[in-house]
Amino acid sequence: MEYYKNWDEVIANVSEFPHPERLVIVCADDAHALEAAQKAAAHATVAPILVGDRAKIEPLAEAAGMDLTRVPVHHEPDNDKAAALAVSLIREGKADYLMKGHIESSALLKAVVSKEHGLTRGRLISHISYIEVPSYHKMIAITDGGMVVYPTLEQKKTIMDHAVNMLLTMGYNRPKVAVLAGIEKVNPKMKETVDAAALKEMNRKGEIRDCVVEGPIAVDIALSKEKARQKDFVSEVAGEADILLVPDLCCGNCIAKILLEMAGGRMAGVVVGASVPIVLTSRSSSMEEKYLSIVISAAFSARKIKNLG
Amino acid sequence: MEYYKNWDEVIANVSEFPHPERLVIVCADDAHALEAAQKAAAHATVAPILVGDRAKIEPLAEAAGMDLTRVPVHHEPDNDKAAALAVSLIREGKADYLMKGHIESSALLKAVVSKEHGLTRGRLISHISYIEVPSYHKMIAITDGGMVVYPTLEQKKTIMDHAVNMLLTMGYNRPKVAVLAGIEKVNPKMKETVDAAALKEMNRKGEIRDCVVEGPIAVDIALSKEKARQKDFVSEVAGEADILLVPDLCCGNCIAKILLEMAGGRMAGVVVGASVPIVLTSRSSSMEEKYLSIVISAAFSARKIKNLG
Repeated sequence: MEYYKNWDEVIANVSEFPHPERLVIVCADDAHALEAAQKAAAHATVAPILVGDRAKIEPLAEAAGMDLTRVPVHHEPDNDKAAALAVSLIREGKADYLMKGHIESSALLKAVVSKEHGLTRGRLISHISYIEVPSYHKMIAITDGGMVVYPTLEQKKTIMDHAVNMLLTMGYNRPKVAVLAGIEKVNPKMKETVDAAALKEMNRKGEIRDCVVEGPIAVDIALSKEKARQKDFVSEVAGEADILLVPDLCCGNCIAKILLEMAGGRMAGVVVGASVPIVLTSRSSSMEEKYLSIVISAAFSARKIKNLG
Repeated sequence: MEYYKNWDEVIANVSEFPHPERLVIVCADDAHALEAAQKAAAHATVAPILVGDRAKIEPLAEAAGMDLTRVPVHHEPDNDKAAALAVSLIREGKADYLMKGHIESSALLKAVVSKEHGLTRGRLISHISYIEVPSYHKMIAITDGGMVVYPTLEQKKTIMDHAVNMLLTMGYNRPKVAVLAGIEKVNPKMKETVDAAALKEMNRKGEIRDCVVEGPIAVDIALSKEKARQKDFVSEVAGEADILLVPDLCCGNCIAKILLEMAGGRMAGVVVGASVPIVLTSRSSSMEEKYLSIVISAAFSARKIKNLG
């Protein structure tokens, strides 16, 4: 497969999985998270597991239409302990991936990155926004607009690896990566252009595999063949980018949110790099964003298991 | 006036000026620049003056429909000398503002920033993108996505002053400035949040006047009242930003180009901070972008003179 055109294609793919992915929601007393999980479960792709304060969870789960005779609830009223319990369910193979409920991101991440009991073995974790935009012919992955504030070159390579790995796992053949920098020339005074050139070179030399890396490149050329033609910029990534690798968190955050708010985008967010995907949408994310984030994480999680099997 | 809703309002305003602004085009052997200037001249707001190689300019000017019995042409085939000549026309009061034609930006800017013969007196110059987007109810100014790569706090203040001054000059009462940072909390590890808080404080103390500054703030909250409400973020700037002050060039470039390419935006670009506005669109800018850049610069230039009068 070359790429997914839109969410319909991603959702159709996930709906065909033989077994639902088991999603453990940490501090599940969160109406939107429960609604989003229930919507995903209706497509038979996701089986929720709830962790948190049972007394608070039960009325919200029922309001969301969940049948608690079929959905397991692990009672743990303390947030930190709930996060640790959810992580242990993953480690023991009793759940497939994680979602943040009514808990601070930092508290959940503390359990995830715990060296002794966590899911990262000390590795960097990063954030991917996966977006459908009416004005582009394929899905766009933007990274990292959520976890690593100012990545070093080495961290950018890891962040790119994570995104490429996710798309490969989901069935892409050879994702096209645009390393964004505002301009196309290497300027020693602009670190993002220097890093972009280095990443492109690593790709050419085979140190970064199974993808095509272009950079430095401005975002309009990454997303528009016409703009590339006007600038005489020849690259198979121009107008065809699958992944936008941004220089820092603020830039990635701005691109994703402008696509979402001003360009009619439909967005999901997922934290990757741990042994399982983590749905870590923010308090203000819409129910749809939470639902799509569960779907994309299920796609990544299930495919990964399939590939391993 | 509170703000301009769209380009129609800006163009109508410029069309009412009693005298056209005299636009000197540097190295005017540039078909798109001439077409854009001719289109602006047809609205009686702009009177072009051409500088460059007469033999190359004449056929292009005629093709663009310019009447060279009415449009002055200063013959100067050398690019650097043409730039210096154009700047001297401004200094002598024989022209009102500048546009880049078929010359490298760096060569034009060298003449502009010349300490002895230039137009800046050593001051910082910065870039403003001014954009109409169908999904927003007013024009958006983005700065600086074109000149200053990594501004310091002091430079950010100057960049903000330039943008506020431009909008005030164009008739805004009290522009609303969003200092973008990806998040709303001050995080000592994220310089853009620290700088944003400092700029907001300077505004509160009256060191930055005639505008309302909010920050740190994410771009979706700056542009959407609904998003602000969901995050319980109360500010008169939320959902009403006139100016987006970005942390660095790459971020500003990405925001402007995403609005242009993916959100149906109509954009102009202008360099400000010199004694006159400078139209410095890139080679790949569309004819419309060049035309709108001439219009916005005329609006800024003419209003400035009027205010001085």
